Amino acid sequence: MTDSREIELDGHIIDSGIMEHVLDSILDMGGDFEILEFSVGKRKTDTSYARVLITGTDNGNLDAIISTLHRHGARLVDTEDVTLVPAEGNRIVPKGFYSTTNYPTQIRIGNEWIHVENIEMDCLIVVSPDKKSAKATPMSKLQKGDLVVIGEHGVKIKPPERSRSHEEFEFMGGVISSERPTETTIRKIAREIIDTHKKGLKVALVGGPAIIHTGADEACASMFREGYIDILFAGNALATHDIEYNLFGTSLGMNIRSGELVSAGHKNHLYAISEIMRAGSIRKAVETGILGSGIMYECIKRNVPYVLAGSIRDDGPLPDVITDAMVAQDEMRRYVPEIGMVLMIATMLHSIAVGNCLPSYVMTVCVDINPSTLTKLMDRGTSQAIGVVSDAGAFFPMLLDQLHQIQKK
Amino acid sequence: MTDSREIELDGHIIDSGIMEHVLDSILDMGGDFEILEFSVGKRKTDTSYARVLITGTDNGNLDAIISTLHRHGARLVDTEDVTLVPAEGNRIVPKGFYSTTNYPTQIRIGNEWIHVENIEMDCLIVVSPDKKSAKATPMSKLQKGDLVVIGEHGVKIKPPERSRSHEEFEFMGGVISSERPTETTIRKIAREIIDTHKKGLKVALVGGPAIIHTGADEACASMFREGYIDILFAGNALATHDIEYNLFGTSLGMNIRSGELVSAGHKNHLYAISEIMRAGSIRKAVETGILGSGIMYECIKRNVPYVLAGSIRDDGPLPDVITDAMVAQDEMRRYVPEIGMVLMIATMLHSIAVGNCLPSYVMTVCVDINPSTLTKLMDRGTSQAIGVVSDAGAFFPMLLDQLHQIQKK
Amino acid sequence: MTDSREIELDGHIIDSGIMEHVLDSILDMGGDFEILEFSVGKRKTDTSYARVLITGTDNGNLDAIISTLHRHGARLVDTEDVTLVPAEGNRIVPKGFYSTTNYPTQIRIGNEWIHVENIEMDCLIVVSPDKKSAKATPMSKLQKGDLVVIGEHGVKIKPPERSRSHEEFEFMGGVISSERPTETTIRKIAREIIDTHKKGLKVALVGGPAIIHTGADEACASMFREGYIDILFAGNALATHDIEYNLFGTSLGMNIRSGELVSAGHKNHLYAISEIMRAGSIRKAVETGILGSGIMYECIKRNVPYVLAGSIRDDGPLPDVITDAMVAQDEMRRYVPEIGMVLMIATMLHSIAVGNCLPSYVMTVCVDINPSTLTKLMDRGTSQAIGVVSDAGAFFPMLLDQLHQIQKK
Amino acid sequence: MTDSREIELDGHIIDSGIMEHVLDSILDMGGDFEILEFSVGKRKTDTSYARVLITGTDNGNLDAIISTLHRHGARLVDTEDVTLVPAEGNRIVPKGFYSTTNYPTQIRIGNEWIHVENIEMDCLIVVSPDKKSAKATPMSKLQKGDLVVIGEHGVKIKPPERSRSHEEFEFMGGVISSERPTETTIRKIAREIIDTHKKGLKVALVGGPAIIHTGADEACASMFREGYIDILFAGNALATHDIEYNLFGTSLGMNIRSGELVSAGHKNHLYAISEIMRAGSIRKAVETGILGSGIMYECIKRNVPYVLAGSIRDDGPLPDVITDAMVAQDEMRRYVPEIGMVLMIATMLHSIAVGNCLPSYVMTVCVDINPSTLTKLMDRGTSQAIGVVSDAGAFFPMLLDQLHQIQKK
Repeated sequence: MTDSREIELDGHIIDSGIMEHVLDSILDMGGDFEILEFSVGKRKTDTSYARVLITGTDNGNLDAIISTLHRHGARLVDTEDVTLVPAEGNRIVPKGFYSTTNYPTQIRIGNEWIHVENIEMDCLIVVSPDKKSAKATPMSKLQKGDLVVIGEHGVKIKPPERSRSHEEFEFMGGVISSERPTETTIRKIAREIIDTHKKGLKVALVGGPAIIHTGADEACASMFREGYIDILFAGNALATHDIEYNLFGTSLGMNIRSGELVSAGHKNHLYAISEIMRAGSIRKAVETGILGSGIMYECIKRNVPYVLAGSIRDDGPLPDVITDAMVAQDEMRRYVPEIGMVLMIATMLHSIAVGNCLPSYVMTVCVDINPSTLTKLMDRGTSQAIGVVSDAGAFFPMLLDQLHQIQKK
Repeated sequence: MTDSREIELDGHIIDSGIMEHVLDSILDMGGDFEILEFSVGKRKTDTSYARVLITGTDNGNLDAIISTLHRHGARLVDTEDVTLVPAEGNRIVPKGFYSTTNYPTQIRIGNEWIHVENIEMDCLIVVSPDKKSAKATPMSKLQKGDLVVIGEHGVKIKPPERSRSHEEFEFMGGVISSERPTETTIRKIAREIIDTHKKGLKVALVGGPAIIHTGADEACASMFREGYIDILFAGNALATHDIEYNLFGTSLGMNIRSGELVSAGHKNHLYAISEIMRAGSIRKAVETGILGSGIMYECIKRNVPYVLAGSIRDDGPLPDVITDAMVAQDEMRRYVPEIGMVLMIATMLHSIAVGNCLPSYVMTVCVDINPSTLTKLMDRGTSQAIGVVSDAGAFFPMLLDQLHQIQKK
Repeated sequence: MTDSREIELDGHIIDSGIMEHVLDSILDMGGDFEILEFSVGKRKTDTSYARVLITGTDNGNLDAIISTLHRHGARLVDTEDVTLVPAEGNRIVPKGFYSTTNYPTQIRIGNEWIHVENIEMDCLIVVSPDKKSAKATPMSKLQKGDLVVIGEHGVKIKPPERSRSHEEFEFMGGVISSERPTETTIRKIAREIIDTHKKGLKVALVGGPAIIHTGADEACASMFREGYIDILFAGNALATHDIEYNLFGTSLGMNIRSGELVSAGHKNHLYAISEIMRAGSIRKAVETGILGSGIMYECIKRNVPYVLAGSIRDDGPLPDVITDAMVAQDEMRRYVPEIGMVLMIATMLHSIAVGNCLPSYVMTVCVDINPSTLTKLMDRGTSQAIGVVSDAGAFFPMLLDQLHQIQKK
Repeated sequence: MTDSREIELDGHIIDSGIMEHVLDSILDMGGDFEILEFSVGKRKTDTSYARVLITGTDNGNLDAIISTLHRHGARLVDTEDVTLVPAEGNRIVPKGFYSTTNYPTQIRIGNEWIHVENIEMDCLIVVSPDKKSAKATPMSKLQKGDLVVIGEHGVKIKPPERSRSHEEFEFMGGVISSERPTETTIRKIAREIIDTHKKGLKVALVGGPAIIHTGADEACASMFREGYIDILFAGNALATHDIEYNLFGTSLGMNIRSGELVSAGHKNHLYAISEIMRAGSIRKAVETGILGSGIMYECIKRNVPYVLAGSIRDDGPLPDVITDAMVAQDEMRRYVPEIGMVLMIATMLHSIAVGNCLPSYVMTVCVDINPSTLTKLMDRGTSQAIGVVSDAGAFFPMLLDQLHQIQKK
């Protein structure tokens, strides 16, 4: 063992499991530790503090350990300013760049701690030329000459601590198994929607076309009309199916009321797109009275912003669809700062995409009939997500009903 | 090519796909055919008739082809009486025994066609000593000396033909994908329950404990109280969870209303069993007022017969549980003849077990959150089952609501 | 009942189930039929012929029935030329347009039957101005003034017939359940790859990043190096993970050999992209020796064409990625005509996208650990696909081994 | 707040997360705490010690909190002897009985700590009449008059602590996602098998019939022949399919080598059972040369004990099958004490049943193509299980290969 360094941790580090993760990581990586100072918060509102000396098997190992501990909220005792290096070219990351988490982050520059704006996972931190502000920047936006933060020193993150109060709906990730009581879970989600609005934050829906297939178009449209959802992230499919259903009563040619395939109904999908093409946009189709109900109609009527991102399996697509994936990502990012809660329903692609752009403190509920969608979302870093194994066709009517019941009280 | 034989087919053999399966099977097995006679039913109510000469690559191959065609409803033109052989010992099947399908079956004996009673898949046909009656007999019941039908000659089966009328809910198997409209599917199931009762037949529930975990205990109990379900097939888990829920408000220690784990709640499971042990049986617990609500309570109150079959993962079990698998199978078989419809909810083991005992003309609806349960059930021979990918906690309240809506009209 | 029309059908219409589907559809839709003529193919190589009079409940119903029968291969007896209508604007489909299947299709024009090129499902048929050729055209490419085929008359399709010979690997869709013998299935896939090449056709891989996560990068790269795969359709993730693995030994920061997370390994993903950004393209990275192994390396070395289509969840992306979904679709379509077989491994998005562009006669094998991916692919119209429930990490090494074993013989 | 009590904890309570769980549980349940003493283990081999004063909202709440903390390894500072109450009747549990975990457990009696034998989850602790020994006793074995431990005082458990060394294959539960490298995972499992034998412990297989369907019969039989597996827990299906395959080359009538259904092959299942019936038992069938290969053959040849537990979906069953579920459970329990590792392959029912009987320190690996089997197993309390999403047909040949590779070195 050659070298060693001191790190410090504070906050509710025992009951949030942070201290455990720190010590585990050191042992997992082959390092050793000595706890130099440990003052435990005696009561539930007191915070604890630890100072730990870390030893690695060699300097490389020590760096690796420090880097891992950083992601658990540890910081070096001897904090200096961050190191900055200009990017050598557009979209070329400098060696040793600091890769963001989705936790609240600060950097030290000119001996002051400044807040990193627009935090989002797997980005770089770019500092403004005057060194007064810093911003999480995805690789695709990195410009030659941008000042990029290198390494972990001078960077401080705040991993989520468990709440001090005995809350109804624990804000913590994990799949709610298909064996839990459905109505109870949905009532909690309904309360969170109402609470998010009380805090002045917005609720976004990330939705897939199964919302329409499974017969939940009307319940979902009501959620927009009644102001429960404020932003829509979706693809060409959700919008087209919604418009098809509201123009022709079918979704991919199936009559949603009777469950039967309508003859020549498979063309309705293209007719729906065509009607919007002729009008010029969804907004114009609503304004000229062509489209008079449904999810997209309610979005237009209530000026709910929507981002329809294209994908390679799209038919059409609708004129409102952004076919370039990078442009669509940027458009989604515009709305992230105002969001307090996201409902992700029956779409893996869009859920992961939106999840990637969200800070860790945004309440994220993901509903899918397939448990593996939920697992993948969390594996991809949206670890704060609460997964519910359920069916959109049952979920939306039950959620709307619970919202109405709560509002009546 | 050496030998050849003539078979004949009649009925709606084109539009039920029977003719297709016959010709396909011959080609698949390396045989050849010549259609000797074919009279097509010109109108939708007319039946067709075909006489086909089959050639095999050798006599063994020809026998194999004839055996396969038999299962599609073909019969040899030169029909003789069935061959009978006495079983050499208990539970020892004779070589070449006829293995039943779950289709209506007749055998020819003394130049008369007699109906095979208690038809069930993968059984033997045992003829009474006076040769006046025949019965499908599972291997476990075969006694030394029983007269067993050998080979396919003299046996005639009637595979399901598609109905001639334009029905609401097609009686044909297949998984209803999670992308179909949930409410529409459930409304059709509700109508079938009502129609089954109108025909004077019974509706059975095969249920797993997820009915209680997911919060559907009350809706399910109402189904029994209001007479929508007439027979219950389940295991120790469903009954214990139901009793635990109705005695203590928990299921495996979780409070179903709040979704929270109750402290020491994991013991409630054993307490529930213990209360019934002390009373002596579920019936006595109801009669002495210990158990006053729930699925099992309603079964006792309405004299709904129930079979609780034990399994190796049981705790307890309850005194009403039949721990011997073979005894439990027999008990289930007692009720099969009166059943017109089966709802299988969230239990693979019991669904396959009941499915094995059902004739093909019993309407079978299987609901599970996991599509692979549905696939396995059909793979195991219950090909008439209609699979619905849904969640018990959402399914029962929606089904009860649909039943009430239909009854109101 | 008001009006009626005659249709005719020929081919192996009984044993391919076509006659069954035709009669079923008429009954399902409330119509009636009279079989006017029926000549059955007496032997296995003979084709059958049927002429059927269809009656609908009214003219609309009759049209609907005829339209459905058309998709089963029926044609009106009184065939006229197709009707053509010019498109009123870009991407606006004319009312009543003919929507293509993915079956081989001909249209009648100037009393001649001409073949429709580039057949693909859910397209329009656009006839050249000189009326000598016709092409399946996706909605996104429809130009104002294009001559579009309206209705089904004058259009003839050829649904797949089952093969006359006793084949090893039945060319027909359906999920091969997880309960079938793994090695046997893989050996059949290996044979199909070799047979496809013998026919002078190409084998394409549609692959997801799980190929690398599950440790199959080397086996998959060998498939390209040894010439078993000729075209690659994938996204940013597969290429980036492959490059990350080959540069750093990790995939999303996990060491594939040891299964452990490498410290700071999460950055390797962005470093990999950055290395390619600096080089300018994957080709340049190979040429300058930066990238010396792996799937993308073998593609460059063997001049295997690849299409990397962007999606909204991409990091980076690599400079080779086509971020506009519509441009990527076109690029994929360029390669479709030469493809005889497609392997779709562990990616739902790209599989459905490629499936949408494939004619029905392209052998399509889809491998995924999740049976619902397979079901969705088939629901979306790629009904010829053979689904295998397996794991990429086990599948590729076993497939390569089977290919080597066959080649050795 | 009314009453309060002191608990103490020691061991690696920080880095095993025990301290975190204790404080979390107090807050979750609405209680409060004061840490009276906390001495942290400064180095990795040092243990920590905490003494905590717990306050509840009332006495009931305090009891509930103490009861929950007990399950995390806490004990009351003022330890007294356990309270004992005689059971009022067979299978009737006394109020307030202590319900076991699957962790190593001690009870205090006559001022001494004695070890509880045969520990298994959800049992009662029954003390011998002489109070010298204690045994975990399932409810089904509780006899009138048995001395049952009541409440948590005087009971001490030892929850698993993470290992101090940097191990290859972390002994901790959790599903290994389908996105992890397959070969790497399997190599680790192979090493554990070898290590378990080195420790003088046995390896048990809990197997389902998919082992045979998916073509792994031979690889699995080799595992027994070469001594890698020492005990077999299965049902009628695995044994019957194995015997059918080894007598007739089929499994449920499908030829495993070619993947094709064999004509009349569905009868082979019953013939296989019948052959064993005639011989009298599997052992006699092996001894008389009727059965000459396969899993059951190897078990007989090597005197590997097997327990075949019946279920209600069984055909036959084989004469070796124990049809009474309670008798089968007992038989399984006989072998548990010698087991160091369990492989659970493709069977949910038997896996949960065996899992229920295992102490927490038995290495448990569960392999299933369906991730929900793995989740359910852990939900049912076998939280130490390591889940691998894979296919038996690919798993066994790869595992055998890895075992051979390791042995060669």
